[in-house]
Amino acid sequence: MQQSKMRIFSGSSNKALTATICKQLGVEPGKIEISRFKSGEVYVHYEESIRNCDVFLVQSLSHPINELFVELLVMIDAAKRASAHTITIVLPYYGYARQERKSAPREPISAKMVADVLTTAGASRVVTLDLHAPAIQGFFNIPVDHLTALDLMTEYLLSKNIQNPVIVSPDAGRASMAEKLASGMDSPFAIMIKKRPAHNQSVITHVIGDVEGRTPIIIEDLIDTGSTILQVVEGLKERGAGDAIVCATHGLFSDKGLARLDHPNIREVVITDSIELAAEELLIPRLHMLSVAPLFSRAIRYIMEGGSIATMFRNRGI
Amino acid sequence: MQQSKMRIFSGSSNKALTATICKQLGVEPGKIEISRFKSGEVYVHYEESIRNCDVFLVQSLSHPINELFVELLVMIDAAKRASAHTITIVLPYYGYARQERKSAPREPISAKMVADVLTTAGASRVVTLDLHAPAIQGFFNIPVDHLTALDLMTEYLLSKNIQNPVIVSPDAGRASMAEKLASGMDSPFAIMIKKRPAHNQSVITHVIGDVEGRTPIIIEDLIDTGSTILQVVEGLKERGAGDAIVCATHGLFSDKGLARLDHPNIREVVITDSIELAAEELLIPRLHMLSVAPLFSRAIRYIMEGGSIATMFRNRGI
Amino acid sequence: MQQSKMRIFSGSSNKALTATICKQLGVEPGKIEISRFKSGEVYVHYEESIRNCDVFLVQSLSHPINELFVELLVMIDAAKRASAHTITIVLPYYGYARQERKSAPREPISAKMVADVLTTAGASRVVTLDLHAPAIQGFFNIPVDHLTALDLMTEYLLSKNIQNPVIVSPDAGRASMAEKLASGMDSPFAIMIKKRPAHNQSVITHVIGDVEGRTPIIIEDLIDTGSTILQVVEGLKERGAGDAIVCATHGLFSDKGLARLDHPNIREVVITDSIELAAEELLIPRLHMLSVAPLFSRAIRYIMEGGSIATMFRNRGI
Amino acid sequence: MQQSKMRIFSGSSNKALTATICKQLGVEPGKIEISRFKSGEVYVHYEESIRNCDVFLVQSLSHPINELFVELLVMIDAAKRASAHTITIVLPYYGYARQERKSAPREPISAKMVADVLTTAGASRVVTLDLHAPAIQGFFNIPVDHLTALDLMTEYLLSKNIQNPVIVSPDAGRASMAEKLASGMDSPFAIMIKKRPAHNQSVITHVIGDVEGRTPIIIEDLIDTGSTILQVVEGLKERGAGDAIVCATHGLFSDKGLARLDHPNIREVVITDSIELAAEELLIPRLHMLSVAPLFSRAIRYIMEGGSIATMFRNRGI
Amino acid sequence: MQQSKMRIFSGSSNKALTATICKQLGVEPGKIEISRFKSGEVYVHYEESIRNCDVFLVQSLSHPINELFVELLVMIDAAKRASAHTITIVLPYYGYARQERKSAPREPISAKMVADVLTTAGASRVVTLDLHAPAIQGFFNIPVDHLTALDLMTEYLLSKNIQNPVIVSPDAGRASMAEKLASGMDSPFAIMIKKRPAHNQSVITHVIGDVEGRTPIIIEDLIDTGSTILQVVEGLKERGAGDAIVCATHGLFSDKGLARLDHPNIREVVITDSIELAAEELLIPRLHMLSVAPLFSRAIRYIMEGGSIATMFRNRGI
Amino acid sequence: MQQSKMRIFSGSSNKALTATICKQLGVEPGKIEISRFKSGEVYVHYEESIRNCDVFLVQSLSHPINELFVELLVMIDAAKRASAHTITIVLPYYGYARQERKSAPREPISAKMVADVLTTAGASRVVTLDLHAPAIQGFFNIPVDHLTALDLMTEYLLSKNIQNPVIVSPDAGRASMAEKLASGMDSPFAIMIKKRPAHNQSVITHVIGDVEGRTPIIIEDLIDTGSTILQVVEGLKERGAGDAIVCATHGLFSDKGLARLDHPNIREVVITDSIELAAEELLIPRLHMLSVAPLFSRAIRYIMEGGSIATMFRNRGI
Repeated sequence: MQQSKMRIFSGSSNKALTATICKQLGVEPGKIEISRFKSGEVYVHYEESIRNCDVFLVQSLSHPINELFVELLVMIDAAKRASAHTITIVLPYYGYARQERKSAPREPISAKMVADVLTTAGASRVVTLDLHAPAIQGFFNIPVDHLTALDLMTEYLLSKNIQNPVIVSPDAGRASMAEKLASGMDSPFAIMIKKRPAHNQSVITHVIGDVEGRTPIIIEDLIDTGSTILQVVEGLKERGAGDAIVCATHGLFSDKGLARLDHPNIREVVITDSIELAAEELLIPRLHMLSVAPLFSRAIRYIMEGGSIATMFRNRGI
Repeated sequence: MQQSKMRIFSGSSNKALTATICKQLGVEPGKIEISRFKSGEVYVHYEESIRNCDVFLVQSLSHPINELFVELLVMIDAAKRASAHTITIVLPYYGYARQERKSAPREPISAKMVADVLTTAGASRVVTLDLHAPAIQGFFNIPVDHLTALDLMTEYLLSKNIQNPVIVSPDAGRASMAEKLASGMDSPFAIMIKKRPAHNQSVITHVIGDVEGRTPIIIEDLIDTGSTILQVVEGLKERGAGDAIVCATHGLFSDKGLARLDHPNIREVVITDSIELAAEELLIPRLHMLSVAPLFSRAIRYIMEGGSIATMFRNRGI
Repeated sequence: MQQSKMRIFSGSSNKALTATICKQLGVEPGKIEISRFKSGEVYVHYEESIRNCDVFLVQSLSHPINELFVELLVMIDAAKRASAHTITIVLPYYGYARQERKSAPREPISAKMVADVLTTAGASRVVTLDLHAPAIQGFFNIPVDHLTALDLMTEYLLSKNIQNPVIVSPDAGRASMAEKLASGMDSPFAIMIKKRPAHNQSVITHVIGDVEGRTPIIIEDLIDTGSTILQVVEGLKERGAGDAIVCATHGLFSDKGLARLDHPNIREVVITDSIELAAEELLIPRLHMLSVAPLFSRAIRYIMEGGSIATMFRNRGI
Repeated sequence: MQQSKMRIFSGSSNKALTATICKQLGVEPGKIEISRFKSGEVYVHYEESIRNCDVFLVQSLSHPINELFVELLVMIDAAKRASAHTITIVLPYYGYARQERKSAPREPISAKMVADVLTTAGASRVVTLDLHAPAIQGFFNIPVDHLTALDLMTEYLLSKNIQNPVIVSPDAGRASMAEKLASGMDSPFAIMIKKRPAHNQSVITHVIGDVEGRTPIIIEDLIDTGSTILQVVEGLKERGAGDAIVCATHGLFSDKGLARLDHPNIREVVITDSIELAAEELLIPRLHMLSVAPLFSRAIRYIMEGGSIATMFRNRGI
Repeated sequence: MQQSKMRIFSGSSNKALTATICKQLGVEPGKIEISRFKSGEVYVHYEESIRNCDVFLVQSLSHPINELFVELLVMIDAAKRASAHTITIVLPYYGYARQERKSAPREPISAKMVADVLTTAGASRVVTLDLHAPAIQGFFNIPVDHLTALDLMTEYLLSKNIQNPVIVSPDAGRASMAEKLASGMDSPFAIMIKKRPAHNQSVITHVIGDVEGRTPIIIEDLIDTGSTILQVVEGLKERGAGDAIVCATHGLFSDKGLARLDHPNIREVVITDSIELAAEELLIPRLHMLSVAPLFSRAIRYIMEGGSIATMFRNRGI
Repeated sequence: MQQSKMRIFSGSSNKALTATICKQLGVEPGKIEISRFKSGEVYVHYEESIRNCDVFLVQSLSHPINELFVELLVMIDAAKRASAHTITIVLPYYGYARQERKSAPREPISAKMVADVLTTAGASRVVTLDLHAPAIQGFFNIPVDHLTALDLMTEYLLSKNIQNPVIVSPDAGRASMAEKLASGMDSPFAIMIKKRPAHNQSVITHVIGDVEGRTPIIIEDLIDTGSTILQVVEGLKERGAGDAIVCATHGLFSDKGLARLDHPNIREVVITDSIELAAEELLIPRLHMLSVAPLFSRAIRYIMEGGSIATMFRNRGI
């Protein structure tokens, strides 16, 4: 059989990131038609033969999440039927990851449904980034390469020479990313203690750790509407902290979330291009975007040529 | 183990139809919260215990199809994890059914992807209506009950005493529904011969069968944008036919399709409530809606109590 | 691991076709013992190592269908256990394809059972020809390459310079093959309107389209007993048509069907070698056989070396 | 849900046995149409509703084995799609059981293929009798109830008051059935030592154990062509034994095997009705048939009503 | 079919707990032989019929974990083959739960392997208690009922009227159990900040939250060797806290862990009977054991009779 | 994609055998950490990248069987998640093989559970040696290469020029290995007739075949505690045979079984290194160990490079 060949295709969500990844790998993005019928049904057509190819499909499950998810399923089905050798799903952002367990009875575990359904459709491997809960790797029986932007973030923050920083985790239950950043920057850290009276809601009750007179670096895997971040920023201000730097791998920015962060006590918002921003969002001052394209292009190269993805990182991420 | 109990829940698409089905069965619709997070993610919560229950989930894959499809997957996942005894998917309208085969290379067979994914999520049975292609039953390994609205349609049309009718199939490749209606009404029938230069497009080249001076009854499983129907109506007019009666089980009416059918050469549009119409659509004159609720309530009763769904129909549908 | 190697083995049904395919590919047919114990059980033994090989098993599900089907299952099982790298099932004729949906309650969908069972036994891919219903592709989750003999047929018929032809579909419900042939030959076409009072029976009620004084070219995917064809031929004669040319991809010829077509109003019967004929059948005058070996040998080459099978065809077949 | 109901259907192979089983259970055999199209394809149609029923399908994989096997697959598929609650396969004789391991490289393990394929088609349980190799139970992941006719056989032989008997196993490798019979009759036993130069062939080299002047009772799970038995009978005669009684659960009698046993040194042939004999075979003198219907009817009753099938037997069979 | 019947069997790990559960349900524990061959292989034999029964198998994956795990697999296999109707695995302690994600490359996710393997063996449902990571529920596609001992713990601690308490989480990354206990007791809480230089090792670097002069209530899901707890106790003492109360659902006490907790700064160790202690361990003073039998007996009753397990708890556990 | 690379890793059971296999193949054993947490949980970490490699995991399911089995499952899971291309399980000794069928009701078929669970964990192929029951090959749907030490054994015994030998099978039901050895050595053979009143117990009742004055060569697939062998040795002595040579592929030697064979009537014990012996066992005089490393290294070479494993053997083994 001939040498297996690599083809990288972008779904609707991440065309810019895919283009950068392809450029770094020295290949052209694959030609694919993705459209909608008037009925709203997704139509997909690979415009070049992918028979026996190792196909990579890049799609973030960002806005509009259900459209993008079904689109990805249809892309996988078409690739499988077109005799692709392997189908690797590149998910810079894994939507539904926050529904990874039942927090009330008779709820779904939607993150598992996503994993099962991608596998059923025909995925043979997943490459993803800073999962909300690392146990999601175990939702799959196909291999998962879990990348992290934490090193990128650490290097950028160190390069800024921030005076008197304190790393802040907005949540007690998920402080490990903050712990790792604190360790990487050799800084103290603090945790905001919250109650969650309902889904998507939270109230800060107190802060543990010393924040007074310090520059808080708030870190999360994901910024959604930004209202939690605002609470944290205000809670820190009340406790005597300086203006904050807000960092997250994934800038989902639901409900005009990025505008909400245009706040006097936020010095800078640092995110990655795991989720594509609208043109007008990119113009917002104090937004700094790091590119994860080098992470994905190296991972794809290692997948094709062999090599340990683990060597790419000092930190093991979230 | 206690007697198994029936619970019927509606997705977002068909609340009115579900309410009618429940009324006919003498039960209350099940209580369920279906909402969206700001991120667009579906959230589902059954508000009553469904442990060991036979659960029926009613959802048409109509507009917006991908939202409704993912919503249904999340509903199934939650029901499975809440220990439902069986999970029957009631699909009054099976979206993606027109993508049931590859008509070009490197296309998906999305109708199969839908079948596989529903099964993976946890469906144990499907009840559906007038599938675009009956072979879709074979896409499932779980039982499928395939209902038809053809008897309802025939009875209604007979009750109108239409003079000099001719049943018209808009398509040579799928004339069986028209053939059955013609046989049921003891009427002649005719076929429109079309070319399909591209997806969702068609051009009528000629008509085979005698239409001059007759009242055409155009029948299809589905009206989408309605432009094919308009072509047919005009093609019939040019060939001397009278004003048409347009019939279909599923009134999808994409892209303001129902308004498009407000046309001087259309006497009446006859559809069913398999897809819920907007309030303003229901006001359109010359629209006649037949209810398929009795079909589904009888089918559910037979599923629960035993009995042959086949006895419900004189015709075997499409 | 060493280069994967190709091996092609024939079941009992198609030795001549396999030999031709192998010759065109420049390889020897693989050595295999296929026999029966006195109990009627199939015995299979590959007489050469197929470890890590890409194995192609050629078998038409023609007469005697159940013998040939079980033989194929046993061949697949043995190949799987002998560590074949991939097992491609080459089905020049897919038997049971006409049972692709339930036309009455409590019937099987045998075409799906065949698909499931081939996959369970160990098939990794299917290559087939002019399926009775294209949706059968969707019955599989392994890749299916669906070839068509329609171009072969069109070229042959054009080369005959038939005067005043009309393409005739014997069936309203499945007129697409005739439509495509008519389009490829730039000829008019006509459809026979039938009733099917029972399985395997039909009565012609009328013809739509103009046939008088024309030479009918009757086209079907399959000729079974030939009695439907005879009805059509006689129905055409009654309506003033000339002697007919009868074309089909698959010449199953059940119940001495080929002899039945030795009829004064049939000028020629055109079929392919997808199903092997008996020696005495080959002697019948007015039979013209086109070989599909080039289609299969090109498809196998593309599967092994990469390349788009779609480029092989102008038409998308049935 | 209503009480589950039992329905028993017979395939083509065992109508008499099924009728007896049904009579013993006080039920009517289920109504089913099983026919063949002219193409040889099986057609199956359940003529009564089996929705939610516990369905039992009785079929021996005897002659013609491949026909009967595919017929059974089609019966299962139709029952699954007709919403049967459970589908129990009653296999009085499990054909292909002798291909339960590879005795040469690149052979199939057809007995496993049969198990996998029955499960894929939709079987939920198997009831079978005196398997050629008990490990075949482990080929299934669905429950298997393995019955034995050994007690029936023992009781019958004891009732004959045979003088000076010796139980003879025709094969060293599978002497356990003979061992158990010898133990049950408190008789000595002997083993024939054979070579198997090829499939379905064997040569007796010597006998171990004392047979001179004794009445040999030769026991096997299965009589196929009978030629092995004849060898054994002659081998015993040469060594001074008396006329033999030949016993087996399954009388397959391939290649006129029963006639072959009409031999001066065979006093009697004792078999069961696990495989239906032709009318003329039943007339052969010295043939004694024991009915296994009571075993199956008790097993079915226990499956429906609960109870330990193990209590049915003193011996654990082969 | 007869009424389904419940049978509860204990593996080797939890006989006392099973006996209590059975007593509370008013049933006898099922009779089962579980032994070892000299080769170390597990042997299992159900000593009563379980045909069509709803079987519950109670086994904690405590010491010796691999023995108990394989024993459970063998129990499940035997139950499946004995035609149990359902097989519910009751895992008071889910071993391997701490390997729920890859924390280094080329590690296993053993908790997922356990889930997959239990399902493959034949489990139809899982009931478990205070999982180390709640996302493990999502590792299963069968229903999981996740119970918690947190309410029991809270009630017990409230009944003691502890003066000036502070709830202490030994780990920043998993503080939610402590948060819930703090909320339930209306107490402040504190978090120990640790580094994990290697597997099973940790070093406390500082404490966030106020502990001076307070009585620390240290809470974890699991006490393994107890050395982490000792570190915490000593770290608290150094920071001026009083003697500690140590609480955990699961008392695994590896490597004589319980003796290690016999420490002057530990007032009391509170655990449950999810893991059976040795007789000598039960004699240790200052050990208080709460029984989770009422949780499991209620859950089993709800599973059999219907009812919402969610109503059993005020807290949603870990 | 780069050339696939081979990596061989040893579990805890067979480090010496693995080292020899690797030496013969000219490769280094792969670097892997296998350890236990204090809780007894297995921890596995591949210390080099195995991405896209063909991984071979060598593990005998000898003492302590359940530890070694779970260790193997964890090794497979980690290899699967580390993106190994294929995972071949090399099982020099397949424990639990004697539980390959139900010999009493409500028993497990543990050998099948082992097969299913290995496959679920991620095995893609199995290479094993002298299975207790060859039908176990059929328990797998992945390819199984079944090697035999019978040729090694035969050559060794022939080289000893034993006078007047008789091959003895200790069991009537499984005499095929003895038959083959007798045929290979051109010697007579005899069978011990036993009763098995209970699991792991047996009583010899008589011997069939001539043993007086001969040197018995007792052959079995496996020596467990050795007590059966002692019975046979003593039974032979009573019947006038000479001192015995005891041969088996697998020397499991449970319960100090090797010491038990230090008996005046045993001249020699011949086994292979399929199971690793303790250092003190290796010192026992009259023990002769044949190495199966050449069998496995050749099999691995053929798997990697292609070639017929069947050509390795004159005999087809047990």
